[in-house]
Amino acid sequence: MLECLVNGEISKFIHTSNRGLNYADGVFETLVVQNARPLRWQAHMDRLGLGCERLGLVMPPQALLLREVQTISTGLGDTVVKIVLTRDGHGRGYTPPSDGSCTRIISAHPYPEGTNDIAREGVTAQICELRLALQPALGGIKHLNRLDQVLAAAEIRDSSAVEGILLDPEDHVISAIAANIFLVSDERLLTPRLDRCGVRGVMRDHILAAFAPRCEQRRIHADMLWEADEVFICNTVRGVVPLIAINDHAYDIGPITRELQAWLLSE
Amino acid sequence: MLECLVNGEISKFIHTSNRGLNYADGVFETLVVQNARPLRWQAHMDRLGLGCERLGLVMPPQALLLREVQTISTGLGDTVVKIVLTRDGHGRGYTPPSDGSCTRIISAHPYPEGTNDIAREGVTAQICELRLALQPALGGIKHLNRLDQVLAAAEIRDSSAVEGILLDPEDHVISAIAANIFLVSDERLLTPRLDRCGVRGVMRDHILAAFAPRCEQRRIHADMLWEADEVFICNTVRGVVPLIAINDHAYDIGPITRELQAWLLSE
Repeated sequence: MLECLVNGEISKFIHTSNRGLNYADGVFETLVVQNARPLRWQAHMDRLGLGCERLGLVMPPQALLLREVQTISTGLGDTVVKIVLTRDGHGRGYTPPSDGSCTRIISAHPYPEGTNDIAREGVTAQICELRLALQPALGGIKHLNRLDQVLAAAEIRDSSAVEGILLDPEDHVISAIAANIFLVSDERLLTPRLDRCGVRGVMRDHILAAFAPRCEQRRIHADMLWEADEVFICNTVRGVVPLIAINDHAYDIGPITRELQAWLLSE
Repeated sequence: MLECLVNGEISKFIHTSNRGLNYADGVFETLVVQNARPLRWQAHMDRLGLGCERLGLVMPPQALLLREVQTISTGLGDTVVKIVLTRDGHGRGYTPPSDGSCTRIISAHPYPEGTNDIAREGVTAQICELRLALQPALGGIKHLNRLDQVLAAAEIRDSSAVEGILLDPEDHVISAIAANIFLVSDERLLTPRLDRCGVRGVMRDHILAAFAPRCEQRRIHADMLWEADEVFICNTVRGVVPLIAINDHAYDIGPITRELQAWLLSE
């Protein structure tokens, strides 16, 4: 972590009674910031707003968040900024105060190295044994309950693959561990519905909006992976990343994946 | 919060990169401590050990935890002590370091008022609309992913009931919001299996061990609530608490609930 603001003050510490720590009671966003300018700001704010609404949090004013993101990233060049909002409260116990006020934790992190290489060469993936829990009340939002992702990431850490593919208990494909997933099949772009689990990624929404006539959100059984012409994953930091294998099944990096990468670069 | 130790040092602050805050990557215990003596210490340590094992954490030595619990509660009389263990790690990203080391956050809180009144008079409950997500990988352990409980507690906060009953997506009874549940039916003690969600409470285990011949762990459909002779909830802080109503269905406080309360008091 390079720098951090807590409720606008320079600090890298929060109180141990924080409800984010004790109950995962909050939401977060991860943004790319170039020379203090956050990319796809409004899309991140829209998703943050959706998460706040679901959890009954009062979202801080966007102008305040923007100012703090700019403050934390000024002079750092390309950086990754994380916004965490945790519900305020005092004392032990799950019951949240009804006023919905929250604490802002805004931190700047180094921009990851090697993203261009990964985009060019693609990565291998493996289907995780862990199945994502279904929780429609939290489906699509980026909340702090991330133990499923941690356990899945531990599986991949101990494997020869680079990425993990997450299924739900009914063997539907949901996402990669920290990225959404698209299958290309007969030139159509298929991506899982995220009404019961998973995170509605900003990059996923960006692709769905730009290529709407060719896209379809649907239930995707794991067996469909083996029939796909191309598979790629995407998130806001890494863009579009081709998968070159899932388990023992190899994929070529296809023309539609390359088309989307070129489109992103040209923006 | 009265006092707090972080890794043995007096402090009420943790770093904003803490994985408990960012990913709910940790486990916790809540203990009653009387004059610096924790009740049911070994049972809490056993469950904490189970949670650490599931998450791949190295549990700190019990003697160290005991010393810190005693340090934090000395001179406070009856108190509630919370032990939180969060996985150590640096940098952004779900992948946990493989060494499993963790941070100890041990805090003392006031012993809640009114527990005797509640035990004598019972409380009303309501079935929550929120359904607990099924996650067998985390079933039974007391991890930091507690958003389900927060959302359920918000429902009850805005209702006329005191307690919430949590069901799984298949309408099986699992627990109250921060307590386990028992149904008394034909003098048998029935309590839900917790292999797919819920927390294996220390008080629940204590009852199951002491009354083994009369107990049964099983799937309990919500409809069975309406046929039960008595219903009570239990946890380590509040002991055995009778339910006097669930939704519009009233219960008498029955002899078996009273028998268990008397047994707990006589220990």
